[in-house]
Amino acid sequence: MPELQQPLENLLNTFNELNPSTVEELFAEPSPLEFMRYVARNTPFVVRGGASTWKATKKWDSAYLRTALEGQSVNVAVTPFGNADAPTFSPEHNATVISKPHEETQQFDDFFTYIIQQETDPAFPLDSEVRYAQTQNDNLRDEYLPLYPDAQRDIPFARIALGKEPDAINLWIGNSRSTTALHKDNFENIFVQIVGRKHFVLLPPLFHACVNEDLVLPATYVRQGEGFALAVDPDSPLVPLATWDPDEPERNATPLSALARPLRVTLEPGDMLYLPAMWYHKVKQSCPDGGEGFVLAINYW
Amino acid sequence: MPELQQPLENLLNTFNELNPSTVEELFAEPSPLEFMRYVARNTPFVVRGGASTWKATKKWDSAYLRTALEGQSVNVAVTPFGNADAPTFSPEHNATVISKPHEETQQFDDFFTYIIQQETDPAFPLDSEVRYAQTQNDNLRDEYLPLYPDAQRDIPFARIALGKEPDAINLWIGNSRSTTALHKDNFENIFVQIVGRKHFVLLPPLFHACVNEDLVLPATYVRQGEGFALAVDPDSPLVPLATWDPDEPERNATPLSALARPLRVTLEPGDMLYLPAMWYHKVKQSCPDGGEGFVLAINYW
Repeated sequence: MPELQQPLENLLNTFNELNPSTVEELFAEPSPLEFMRYVARNTPFVVRGGASTWKATKKWDSAYLRTALEGQSVNVAVTPFGNADAPTFSPEHNATVISKPHEETQQFDDFFTYIIQQETDPAFPLDSEVRYAQTQNDNLRDEYLPLYPDAQRDIPFARIALGKEPDAINLWIGNSRSTTALHKDNFENIFVQIVGRKHFVLLPPLFHACVNEDLVLPATYVRQGEGFALAVDPDSPLVPLATWDPDEPERNATPLSALARPLRVTLEPGDMLYLPAMWYHKVKQSCPDGGEGFVLAINYW
Repeated sequence: MPELQQPLENLLNTFNELNPSTVEELFAEPSPLEFMRYVARNTPFVVRGGASTWKATKKWDSAYLRTALEGQSVNVAVTPFGNADAPTFSPEHNATVISKPHEETQQFDDFFTYIIQQETDPAFPLDSEVRYAQTQNDNLRDEYLPLYPDAQRDIPFARIALGKEPDAINLWIGNSRSTTALHKDNFENIFVQIVGRKHFVLLPPLFHACVNEDLVLPATYVRQGEGFALAVDPDSPLVPLATWDPDEPERNATPLSALARPLRVTLEPGDMLYLPAMWYHKVKQSCPDGGEGFVLAINYW
């Protein structure tokens, strides 16, 4: 739609001029009313140290987690490259698909040993598969129930402001090999970092024209010999997927992608992020030197 | 842009399906947090009787107003048809212009007698000019200061929620001959009806494609003999104006105007309306039988 490009350019440039290029930092939790002002403005913020007094932040090291979850089996998302739900070129289909992970049940201890060794053992094969506990089905109140008492039941300022309990509380356990590709969710989202770091790249909903959303086939990884194949989901409709990556801005760009000015924020243990509904976000992870080699976060939505 | 019409139709139809066709009614003022939820959802509401205990609502009849404002002169907007700031066809320019009122200073008593007689005296000439006290320059704390103690300094739920005092408090005094044409403002707005009725027609910002916004010349009425002429403002840029009227939906329609489903709400004395920023609104007025023949409201923004 070339006749639309100039007004869209003006709109995005104006937005960039009027809005800050960093995520606002608070150093204490907002009141419900203050929070609601951010919701009304559809604006993210980070509370530095907002969860620093949680039991989870203080107690969850690898020994504690292994003891608390002894004998538990957990759902694990497995991919060859840490590319769950990402745009992936499938040579077999000669098309970009959204690559859904292979999901399997593993003993927590085996899964946890694997991600830590992959992160910390220099001899671990570089091309080894990537595992990520990332079921977003309220898992902290299900598979990881033994850990639930160490976290909060909810985020009080959000519960009071929105007038409802969280729909789901999800635990995310992985290592630096997993990346969550740029996407958006239809929920108000509070992310709480417990162990390691998460690196968020954020883009407001207005920048839709920059992310090159395309309708793609959904395909799921299946184990095949030592590796993986992508099997297109039978009878599944095409799904919309952002195919532009803010970390590779030249690839898959639209004429307007150059106007995107993503906000970047890193969560350290104890930090909270308010991620407004419908904001695009890409999430990377890292383990600081001297850490135990895993990354753990909780989100409420 | 014909290729945009189908997605816009889908968007507007979906909005209509998911949203109520009436303005939500409350029967007590919301808390600041409840108010902020409406702001966040960009959704209007009316508080029936929210200002019924105000001194203004109880005391402001014509005798009281004449006494309180004795000797005051006030700014009056004068138009031939009650069409201040409306799209008006100017035969002289062979174009639709936005017709700004002639403004003049009148003794309050003279102005007030005029609008009441025009409303109530069957012998009053039908083609007589229309007068409306509608300066939106914080007039309740200026020209009408003697009345200010009878109104509230602010709307507490809005002041606390938005974290600021009102920028302006405006008094509006007129009769059923004045109509405010469909337009939008960049302010959160609380309307409080004191005397008579205001009939609001509301349309969410999303319905931009229905209101046939056009760039028009601004022109101002000037007295000419017994009547008026429209003089184009010198050196003024064209201004955007909604040229579609929800009460005459066939005229000046766009291909999408038929999808507009305006919300209609009538304010009775003591009612409050929250009108979110950027919502289109058209406002008519009426004087119930047995009333004194004027309409008076206050708005806070």
